[in-house]
Amino acid sequence: MFDKILIANRGEIALRVIRACREMGIASVAVHSTADADAMHVRMADESVCIGPNPSSESYLKVSQIIAACEVTGAQAIHPGYGFLSENAGFVQALEDHGITFIGPSAEHIRMMGDKITAKETAKRLGIPVVPGSAGGVPDIETAQAVASEMGFPVIIKATAGGGGRGMKVATSLEDLEVAFRTARSEAKAAFGNDEVYIEKYLEKPRHIEIQVFGDGKGRGVHLGERDCSLQRRHQKVLEEAPGPCIPPEERARIGKICADAIGELGYAGAGTIEFLYEDGEFYFIEMNTRLQVEHPVTEAIFGVDLVRQQIRVAAGLGMEFTQDDLKINGHAIEVRINAERIPNFAPCPGKVTAFHAPGGLGVRIDSALYAGYKIPPYYDSLIGKLIVHGADRQEALARLHRALGEMIIDGVDTTIPLFNALLEEPDIQAGNYSIHWLEKWLKAKYA
Amino acid sequence: MFDKILIANRGEIALRVIRACREMGIASVAVHSTADADAMHVRMADESVCIGPNPSSESYLKVSQIIAACEVTGAQAIHPGYGFLSENAGFVQALEDHGITFIGPSAEHIRMMGDKITAKETAKRLGIPVVPGSAGGVPDIETAQAVASEMGFPVIIKATAGGGGRGMKVATSLEDLEVAFRTARSEAKAAFGNDEVYIEKYLEKPRHIEIQVFGDGKGRGVHLGERDCSLQRRHQKVLEEAPGPCIPPEERARIGKICADAIGELGYAGAGTIEFLYEDGEFYFIEMNTRLQVEHPVTEAIFGVDLVRQQIRVAAGLGMEFTQDDLKINGHAIEVRINAERIPNFAPCPGKVTAFHAPGGLGVRIDSALYAGYKIPPYYDSLIGKLIVHGADRQEALARLHRALGEMIIDGVDTTIPLFNALLEEPDIQAGNYSIHWLEKWLKAKYA
Repeated sequence: MFDKILIANRGEIALRVIRACREMGIASVAVHSTADADAMHVRMADESVCIGPNPSSESYLKVSQIIAACEVTGAQAIHPGYGFLSENAGFVQALEDHGITFIGPSAEHIRMMGDKITAKETAKRLGIPVVPGSAGGVPDIETAQAVASEMGFPVIIKATAGGGGRGMKVATSLEDLEVAFRTARSEAKAAFGNDEVYIEKYLEKPRHIEIQVFGDGKGRGVHLGERDCSLQRRHQKVLEEAPGPCIPPEERARIGKICADAIGELGYAGAGTIEFLYEDGEFYFIEMNTRLQVEHPVTEAIFGVDLVRQQIRVAAGLGMEFTQDDLKINGHAIEVRINAERIPNFAPCPGKVTAFHAPGGLGVRIDSALYAGYKIPPYYDSLIGKLIVHGADRQEALARLHRALGEMIIDGVDTTIPLFNALLEEPDIQAGNYSIHWLEKWLKAKYA
Repeated sequence: MFDKILIANRGEIALRVIRACREMGIASVAVHSTADADAMHVRMADESVCIGPNPSSESYLKVSQIIAACEVTGAQAIHPGYGFLSENAGFVQALEDHGITFIGPSAEHIRMMGDKITAKETAKRLGIPVVPGSAGGVPDIETAQAVASEMGFPVIIKATAGGGGRGMKVATSLEDLEVAFRTARSEAKAAFGNDEVYIEKYLEKPRHIEIQVFGDGKGRGVHLGERDCSLQRRHQKVLEEAPGPCIPPEERARIGKICADAIGELGYAGAGTIEFLYEDGEFYFIEMNTRLQVEHPVTEAIFGVDLVRQQIRVAAGLGMEFTQDDLKINGHAIEVRINAERIPNFAPCPGKVTAFHAPGGLGVRIDSALYAGYKIPPYYDSLIGKLIVHGADRQEALARLHRALGEMIIDGVDTTIPLFNALLEEPDIQAGNYSIHWLEKWLKAKYA
């Protein structure tokens, strides 16, 4: 096992890893920008090293500085947290060249999943269901008609070179298709100088369901069920829960096994998340994140496992402490992301936290780097804490969330706490009845 | 179900009950002395009523005032917490006369278990093992020899009228017995004016093991395993854990079934704890507490149940939400009692809490009525918070406890936190190898 680990991150996730290190008897090294000299992760680690000025590009993303910090402190391994360098294959390669262990998958697996096309091809090859679509570009309307008829309407036409919604058109029937196809092509031509388009099945009200996987790097893979992260604003998750309120046990077992087998076959090492859109009982692969997710605590709550501990063990070659059969779901967990943001426009709201009081009691977990007197710097992500509740069932978890939110005091800055109090009043949230579009629609209606 | 519950208590246990009420959609009423006007339980409850001046006898123990507060606020039921009026049969009777539901067992059961002699007789009748002893007073040395030989040495001779260690003598062999018997009798005569003595089996290094029981009041009883509370100073528990580090599953099942059956046969309603001394694989009944214990959270952690919620349900006639078969142990939990006391003499240390920061992260629960700026009044118990950790096994729980204690900040008053940090260094604590005498002996050696 490692004697010392450097955490190449900040905020609550740096604390999360420091806690796991401490419980495992491993010394921890924090790195920080000049803006973060007073940050909680610096205070809590056994050692700390300043790696540069405020902008992330000059500190938390500065590979040479992080490697130097490792060498100065004698840290044998690096935990990247999420974001920053956590999915940077070049970083992993550089660590390998310096004989430092990366706590995460291989550079090869990061690269494979970091490229959308390779990721989808790999998923297909491994038997993971993907969104049905044309095999590459669709040259003419006749081919479009044939492809669309085979997969069934609605379909979406997308520019091969595209992104950001341009060159994208939905067709709900064969009658629509011709106009949609032509419009998409001409928009694509205008926007990207390339009129090639492809066709995919269009999901109207999908949910975002992601499967937590774990591999020992030696051919064994397991899954830890799903998280439902459909509540999103501008592709940012705001509330996550496990298990998914709409996933029957047999579907969990089915997709879980597919994912676990894929991880085993890849020889993947450590934690990963395979993200899907889910509609009408079918899963459609979106992407795979080759790192710990922000929302990993809901999975930890219902399975009673410490995912960071397992990441560290796997990186040290010790393997996981559980098998698939050990993993039984116990109750229901919900996480809300407390951001220093002003509702309703979600404008970041950095500044001094004049008072902080965390909720307590049964089934409540706080992962936060806040303390009374802390100045939230304006340079980084606005996530300042996560509140995770665990109950015997979803109803108890919701009631507990409501109770815990009521106890939480963060003075001095605006936060997203009022958003969650409002959400908990909604029958759709109470019933677990929401797609990936629900939140944006609700926000528009509520704060119009 | 009740609409409104009054909590006849203060501090962390009042918060504990308020939290359960809130999660169940029940309004809560706090009562408080004048000294507690700014207490957390007053701030957190939906309503509050001042019931008298600082001394408990004038407020928290004042039955007429508490009943008046119920009538003024329209509360239909009272949760007594622990201590104060929680095991006062007269109080329960008075509530019944006023048509207020007591959240706890019947006055009859409280009375039965409140009297040591009736309690022991009841235990015997129900098949609960008790300390072997003479049936009443032992008139002469011949009888003493016969009794002691039958139960085996060592034995202890105790004054029937006694207490406080006077008139108590241990005999380790037949040779010792005569002198011990005579000395005990003459000490008893001198101290209590009555030389009658009785004889019991003497346990040299017993552990304090208590069984959590729960009854629906209609003949169904279950047990939730044991807690080991052997670490005590002057009969005050300081650290509790579940499951007991020395209790094999088959012994848990055996004593658990005896206790559950007894609770069922009694028709007992709600939570109770049957306390035992435990030595060489045998359990010896001490007493039964007919209320929630301070240390109930360790049981909640390993069984995933909310005991206060179940108390409220049973009091409302709804029954428990689990059967014996549902109750499976998951991991290991440890609680430490954070008292405002100065180590090593444990002198109470009331005063203003200038800073408070609770530990967070996986497997950590805080039950505390502290907040930054709170003035701990000098009139009540010095317990200011409980830190409960839960891990996959005992080793992980110990590591987590160490980690969490390191994160906890309570400035302005002395606390027992340094005691726990020191205890965690001890090989005996790490190995779970301690009897009810361990802590006092260790304190004497450490702080002599």
